[in-house]
Amino acid sequence: MHAGVDLGGTKIQVAIVDRDHNVRGTDRRLTPTVGTPDDVADTIAASVEAAAKDAGITLDDICAAGVGSPGQIDLNAGTVSNAGNLPGWKTATYALGPQLSKRLGGIPVSIGNDVQVAVDAEVHLGAGRPYKSLLGVFLGTGVGGGVVFGDELWVGRGAAGEIGHTVVEAKGGAPCPCGRSGCLEAYAGRSAMEIQARKWHEAGKKTKLFKIMEEKGKTRLASGVWDKALKKNDKMAKKLIDRAVWASGEAIGSAVNLLDVDAVVIGGGLGIRLGQPLADRITEAMKPRLIKPNDAPPVLVAELGDLGGAIGASLLVSHLDERVGQKTPGAARNPQGTTKPIKGHH
Amino acid sequence: MHAGVDLGGTKIQVAIVDRDHNVRGTDRRLTPTVGTPDDVADTIAASVEAAAKDAGITLDDICAAGVGSPGQIDLNAGTVSNAGNLPGWKTATYALGPQLSKRLGGIPVSIGNDVQVAVDAEVHLGAGRPYKSLLGVFLGTGVGGGVVFGDELWVGRGAAGEIGHTVVEAKGGAPCPCGRSGCLEAYAGRSAMEIQARKWHEAGKKTKLFKIMEEKGKTRLASGVWDKALKKNDKMAKKLIDRAVWASGEAIGSAVNLLDVDAVVIGGGLGIRLGQPLADRITEAMKPRLIKPNDAPPVLVAELGDLGGAIGASLLVSHLDERVGQKTPGAARNPQGTTKPIKGHH
Repeated sequence: MHAGVDLGGTKIQVAIVDRDHNVRGTDRRLTPTVGTPDDVADTIAASVEAAAKDAGITLDDICAAGVGSPGQIDLNAGTVSNAGNLPGWKTATYALGPQLSKRLGGIPVSIGNDVQVAVDAEVHLGAGRPYKSLLGVFLGTGVGGGVVFGDELWVGRGAAGEIGHTVVEAKGGAPCPCGRSGCLEAYAGRSAMEIQARKWHEAGKKTKLFKIMEEKGKTRLASGVWDKALKKNDKMAKKLIDRAVWASGEAIGSAVNLLDVDAVVIGGGLGIRLGQPLADRITEAMKPRLIKPNDAPPVLVAELGDLGGAIGASLLVSHLDERVGQKTPGAARNPQGTTKPIKGHH
Repeated sequence: MHAGVDLGGTKIQVAIVDRDHNVRGTDRRLTPTVGTPDDVADTIAASVEAAAKDAGITLDDICAAGVGSPGQIDLNAGTVSNAGNLPGWKTATYALGPQLSKRLGGIPVSIGNDVQVAVDAEVHLGAGRPYKSLLGVFLGTGVGGGVVFGDELWVGRGAAGEIGHTVVEAKGGAPCPCGRSGCLEAYAGRSAMEIQARKWHEAGKKTKLFKIMEEKGKTRLASGVWDKALKKNDKMAKKLIDRAVWASGEAIGSAVNLLDVDAVVIGGGLGIRLGQPLADRITEAMKPRLIKPNDAPPVLVAELGDLGGAIGASLLVSHLDERVGQKTPGAARNPQGTTKPIKGHH
């Protein structure tokens, strides 16, 4: 068995996965919001143990673990740097791989980028299965992504896939949480959309968004809040989602012109919640930008849902197995090519 | 020996290349501006024969030919469709590969995209040699490009590399010759730049551009005209080149965020003419858009110059050799990996 860990700013999701990629047990808990990276590693280890128990096994039965993490990843060293949403990690570099390995009885631990591994899971096990090349666009708090060419995740020098920070409006574009302006994320990231909604709301514009948020007991405009506001025909919600669709069409259309991929997969909290109708709107929005509008690639919704990140992280391990000497040869020989899911420098 | 053909709207450039990729003979002649695709095929065949003579060989000594062509290419069928700059070809589909083969004694002929093959030549034999992944951006009449991942040209579903039609300004952007607006080519393609210069000139703005053009006996603002106007400190030329640099920085910076490539190679008539100083300006212009500004990939100038397209077309043939049974086994076994220079669906 392998453990896959999806490390997010809000929650840690663990899946225990067998060699055929079936999920055998899970655990989900809140990410510590105070403390140090060591506390995060402790929490992950406890979550892996709980997930093992859920699967009816013990830590001893787990051969390896993969972690999908935010921040900047050094794939070889297993370090994570500048993970701004994690406690004590904003400017730190932390050896999450080795530290977690120590806490899990010395098993090999591989670290990858959170969105990249989720895209990898979609191409090997999810909506991207029929395709050999893919652009994954994950609409969540921010906008992340991943690119797959010839069935292999392309990581470049480690950070490929950042479609959220490709330009849509270079001049006079909306402010982006990254500090730049006019990026896709400035229009289609939930965080940027919430900032804009709050501004308009404070300026006296009417919206049901914040009332729905309170009713749902949330402090943020979560994906479900947007969904409900749209269903109630809230004008401001509609306007901000329209803007997100427009910007997604421009950025994804541009990326399709550059890469001519077989398919686009939309994921992330907001993407999964709004589903195929959103994907269909993005298809229409990208066509005017495409040089081959009559040959637009299909835009699909990620299939693996909330567990996609954890399952994708477990795929890091098949790859690791190769390097550490086929500890679990079965998993390293599946027909879908996960023996070498990642390409680039590492 | 192989023949490589760079088929352009203005000229046909042929290079006769040996198995070590040395150019042994060349021919260059004007592309027919009237007539049919058959006339273009006749002219190419005559040019190949002349280049063979220049190399001290005959047509019988040429084992295969590759053609880098504008328009939409079907790599398997060897057809070229919608090549708007070629006579009688705007809406036609023409079997250039088979037709040229017939005119060259039945040797195999492979057709590729003109800019893609030039980028392929740069990564295997030119400025991109030290790198495994590359973004090629060719600034010419239009703006074309190509992407290389893990030493292999990525063609996607045939048309990958079109960075000229990635968005810079989605709203209120400059008009692009493609009919859309705000594309990179709308700012950095010589054709779009000339249209803007003529508009400003007709509106009474001063410039030396058109005087220099006439002095050089040209009817278009060729790359040398822009170069000379810049050297004479012409304000309008400076402004339009500044704009091209700015837009290139935005579009290339976005592509680097998405693909995290090892290097960027600037080519094309204008790119090669303005050279490394232009490339250095593009580096500075892209940094504000990069999510890793301190780890910007080097921006280099294409090394193979005017012959790059023809040499790149000859590389199509190494690939073809594999399919037709190692007709020239030496060329198919060079250490730089040109045995499989192209990846995607074909």
